[in-house]
Amino acid sequence: MAALLRFSAARFLAGVAVMKLKRPPVNSLNMELLTEFAINLEKLEIDRGCRGVILTSAVPRIFSAGLDITEMCGKNADHYGEFWRAVQEMWLKLYGSSMVTIAAINGSSPAGGCLMALSCDYRIIANNKKYTIGLNETQLGIVAPFWFKDIITEVIGHRAAERSLQLGMLYSPTDALKIGLVDEVVAEDKVQSTASAVMAQWLTLPDHARQITKSMMRKPSLDRLVTHREADITNFVSYITRDSIQKSLQMYMEMLKKKGR
Amino acid sequence: MAALLRFSAARFLAGVAVMKLKRPPVNSLNMELLTEFAINLEKLEIDRGCRGVILTSAVPRIFSAGLDITEMCGKNADHYGEFWRAVQEMWLKLYGSSMVTIAAINGSSPAGGCLMALSCDYRIIANNKKYTIGLNETQLGIVAPFWFKDIITEVIGHRAAERSLQLGMLYSPTDALKIGLVDEVVAEDKVQSTASAVMAQWLTLPDHARQITKSMMRKPSLDRLVTHREADITNFVSYITRDSIQKSLQMYMEMLKKKGR
Amino acid sequence: MAALLRFSAARFLAGVAVMKLKRPPVNSLNMELLTEFAINLEKLEIDRGCRGVILTSAVPRIFSAGLDITEMCGKNADHYGEFWRAVQEMWLKLYGSSMVTIAAINGSSPAGGCLMALSCDYRIIANNKKYTIGLNETQLGIVAPFWFKDIITEVIGHRAAERSLQLGMLYSPTDALKIGLVDEVVAEDKVQSTASAVMAQWLTLPDHARQITKSMMRKPSLDRLVTHREADITNFVSYITRDSIQKSLQMYMEMLKKKGR
Repeated sequence: MAALLRFSAARFLAGVAVMKLKRPPVNSLNMELLTEFAINLEKLEIDRGCRGVILTSAVPRIFSAGLDITEMCGKNADHYGEFWRAVQEMWLKLYGSSMVTIAAINGSSPAGGCLMALSCDYRIIANNKKYTIGLNETQLGIVAPFWFKDIITEVIGHRAAERSLQLGMLYSPTDALKIGLVDEVVAEDKVQSTASAVMAQWLTLPDHARQITKSMMRKPSLDRLVTHREADITNFVSYITRDSIQKSLQMYMEMLKKKGR
Repeated sequence: MAALLRFSAARFLAGVAVMKLKRPPVNSLNMELLTEFAINLEKLEIDRGCRGVILTSAVPRIFSAGLDITEMCGKNADHYGEFWRAVQEMWLKLYGSSMVTIAAINGSSPAGGCLMALSCDYRIIANNKKYTIGLNETQLGIVAPFWFKDIITEVIGHRAAERSLQLGMLYSPTDALKIGLVDEVVAEDKVQSTASAVMAQWLTLPDHARQITKSMMRKPSLDRLVTHREADITNFVSYITRDSIQKSLQMYMEMLKKKGR
Repeated sequence: MAALLRFSAARFLAGVAVMKLKRPPVNSLNMELLTEFAINLEKLEIDRGCRGVILTSAVPRIFSAGLDITEMCGKNADHYGEFWRAVQEMWLKLYGSSMVTIAAINGSSPAGGCLMALSCDYRIIANNKKYTIGLNETQLGIVAPFWFKDIITEVIGHRAAERSLQLGMLYSPTDALKIGLVDEVVAEDKVQSTASAVMAQWLTLPDHARQITKSMMRKPSLDRLVTHREADITNFVSYITRDSIQKSLQMYMEMLKKKGR
């Protein structure tokens, strides 16, 4: 397996792992990265020396561009099903983590990148107007699945989520803060230090009580996906294999290529 | 059927219909207007040339005063049941519309008028301190039904909804904006042009992805009414036929008459 | 039964009872106070002359320190079960009250004290930076039960509740206002007069319509506890009797003793 994640040794000092996504040019989440992410998170989960994870990017100006569209385009149904299961698994592990999870968002974070950030306990974003964050799926002609919808509804409330999802809105850091999509906007060179400081604060809490409390808040949404997991895969495969959707995605990929990505 | 709605031809140009309520003096929603509204909305729904509806008023200073109290007072149980079914139908059609729906609120919008606005995708209100908006049912001694409660809870959150409904609060445009009951406050002469501009923005999204996303957000509430529709009618009839409620409504009508409405 | 509550005669004038908690030094909620509270609230509930209750403290600088830890420490399982049932009963009565309930928070209000305030219809807190309010259970190494979680989620929304509960956050009055944990911050000597003025406003609404509306908003949460009441007791007893939890609570009590409380 390629090393698509970089780990900082910080955890040996203070119980904190720093996971840096590094799949240039835009940290798009392909099968390999998703799998590696889930496996490594699981390892940290059972490592009693690790109490918190800071999730960030090793690629300049991008946190993660979200799901890798090449995994959803021009492949067969089995591939799509397998890919979607990997996306679900990443989310179940991250949203359901008993560790403290902090997103240090040091670049743009659309779609699946935004979902990863939303699944952490706390979100810090760099104050750079060029960065955007949001679930912009409709802009691409596709639909965020119900559990993306559930989590953004939990974070920003029903009304803001409805508008945000219908329009596929991407927010600047300050606008994201206003609607509660992130918790803090800091200078670009303070993202990592702020993440460490916030982590230190969260780690002052007794693990046991904090973990049960976190699970109590998140279990209903996690259970909903676990219960409907196979139906969600079937639904995704039947949706993504439609001619009209494949065409939308291909047009989007062409556009990305023209942009030089 | 009387022409209680006025349509603008704008839709032939840009896929947008403008529906103007015109039942002076206060656009109160009687059986006839509700039925005409539902039928016309349904027609637009199946007209593939129409992608969006702007809902506004042709009567100065009032968007809609809400349900016509004369339909709820001094009639028999069958009438009340039939009336309530028409109210439900209007809401199921409007809240469940797959088109982009924008409320251009150019006047006061209490009770059922507020419900109509809340059921659109976006709300723009004229910046006029004399206009008020809110679900003020308790002020009249009556109770908003569960689906009015569901929708205001979705829009402004549980706490604000509870306070708002218990007190039957009516908000000025700026206060309505503060709690999220409307999305935008603009100068009185900019309401229609802003509605058109917002509509243009929403229509840049691919219909299919936007429609599925909208349905995903709204289906639970729509399903709740569909499931409990008959019980909701029975409940309304049994409530509205009580002597004490009839007395409250009659007192309220007397007051309106004295005010010259 | 000791007089742990003090009643003001105000209700004989205007349909309003003032309940003042007075169990120095910190109004901690022991079995006796909880029972007395529930019984007295029930009496007011059936007294048709009483339409509203203002809940406040007769002890300077403290609204209520929450559940009395001595009831949860060094006792037997039967005692814990009985105590927890009394806590549930207090909440079912207060959150489910058909009267208008206003919290005049004239001092600090952590944990169970915060729950009491959150269960009222309106919260006014004294503008004193030394006062804090919040569900700080995790700070003590314990977990707020699901219905504490439900109610704070209803009041401040899912995201704010999750962060607040995980960190066991205590807020200053102005910070509490910002996240919606309280409705109003007023000068310390205006707490009671503001509570009276707000009560007068709420009492202008017709009781019947307001009560049904309140019940409609609160019934789902009340029903959830009623349905899971015995399981919640079993869960509490099994949790609180753990060695690690007993140790946490004992350490906390030692700390309180050192602080001279």
